[in-house]
Amino acid sequence: MILARVVGTVVATRKEQSMEGLRFMLLQQVDLEGKPKGAFVVAADAVGSGVGEIVLYASGSSARQTVATDRRPCDAVIMAIVDSWEVGGKVKYKK
Amino acid sequence: MILARVVGTVVATRKEQSMEGLRFMLLQQVDLEGKPKGAFVVAADAVGSGVGEIVLYASGSSARQTVATDRRPCDAVIMAIVDSWEVGGKVKYKK
Amino acid sequence: MILARVVGTVVATRKEQSMEGLRFMLLQQVDLEGKPKGAFVVAADAVGSGVGEIVLYASGSSARQTVATDRRPCDAVIMAIVDSWEVGGKVKYKK
Amino acid sequence: MILARVVGTVVATRKEQSMEGLRFMLLQQVDLEGKPKGAFVVAADAVGSGVGEIVLYASGSSARQTVATDRRPCDAVIMAIVDSWEVGGKVKYKK
Amino acid sequence: MILARVVGTVVATRKEQSMEGLRFMLLQQVDLEGKPKGAFVVAADAVGSGVGEIVLYASGSSARQTVATDRRPCDAVIMAIVDSWEVGGKVKYKK
Repeated sequence: MILARVVGTVVATRKEQSMEGLRFMLLQQVDLEGKPKGAFVVAADAVGSGVGEIVLYASGSSARQTVATDRRPCDAVIMAIVDSWEVGGKVKYKK
Repeated sequence: MILARVVGTVVATRKEQSMEGLRFMLLQQVDLEGKPKGAFVVAADAVGSGVGEIVLYASGSSARQTVATDRRPCDAVIMAIVDSWEVGGKVKYKK
Repeated sequence: MILARVVGTVVATRKEQSMEGLRFMLLQQVDLEGKPKGAFVVAADAVGSGVGEIVLYASGSSARQTVATDRRPCDAVIMAIVDSWEVGGKVKYKK
Repeated sequence: MILARVVGTVVATRKEQSMEGLRFMLLQQVDLEGKPKGAFVVAADAVGSGVGEIVLYASGSSARQTVATDRRPCDAVIMAIVDSWEVGGKVKYKK
Repeated sequence: MILARVVGTVVATRKEQSMEGLRFMLLQQVDLEGKPKGAFVVAADAVGSGVGEIVLYASGSSARQTVATDRRPCDAVIMAIVDSWEVGGKVKYKK
């Protein structure tokens, strides 16, 4: 899974029918300090996340292992909202 | 999923039989401003997209989760046409 | 799928038994002008392609969705031979 | 599989229900000398690893082939704790 | 599949039970001249390869399509030992 911040949302009215009702969140990866870095990705939301939150997302077929995304053409899903992480015993991020 | 613009089409008459009838679209990834960046990919079209439109595509096994691509050797599919997106409350792209 | 040119072939007599009879083609990705760029990959051939041709290949589990590669430890397959593509209404490559 | 060091842990109380009970470990890839390099990833732990250990992790659908991760939206799993490796007959790392 | 040289071995006594009996080989990708380049990966061995040999490995779910790796948390497998390859009619590598 990858740590990323929810930075926005995407609207798409014309889509594969099975994608109806899913929210598309715009994610930017963050580094160990929680700062933005590198790639953007669009993920479906399985946990009710909001803009500004740091989340974990899963990619590939694992992105379909939620009730919300099962058997859908979805290759990235937010499956957890991050409270905190620590590195070497030090808290690096706390919500 | 990845944001990309449909920039062209690919013709291939000799192909795996199961790919008959699928349209191959040439996609270029876009950044958060909708400007072209980096990689090109060829995706099957599951939503009737056209050249010039910004779309979402899904990769890997998730690309086979549409009626059009089920059980086909297809690893990228356009599964939504993008209307708009916003970042930090600001509309960054509108069709 | 990715556009690539068949640049060579690979011989491997000792291999997973299920791979018997498959041809291994050496592919180099091409850019929108058909010129070589970046990465090489070895793909199984499902469409009778030849050295010099530009092809489409599919990766991952999608590479197993052909009669030739079903249930085989094969993660890249040539599933179409490209005739032409166009970008912005202009033909960029024609066989 | 990729060699990586467990450098920390991630806490996420709000998550896909099926992820309950899984520990999220923060991993950093290492080079052949065991030194940190490049990318970070968050993996579920299937083997009881601890911070500081060098492990192997598997990605994609293979990350779901453990009792702990079966059918869960998990795309990276620690599936082995590394004792040692050697390159060209020389031990490069020993726990 | 990717061309790589077996450069070493990895020992891990504590691992997912289903991985018992599999050998972990350390692979380094090679270029078209057979010279080392870029990334390292750890792959399970399905063909009895040895250190020094150039092999083909498959990634992702395709890495589980061998008797040795079926249903195991294994995302890379050596599925062929390379005898030779040629590019543009010229032999570039011969064992």
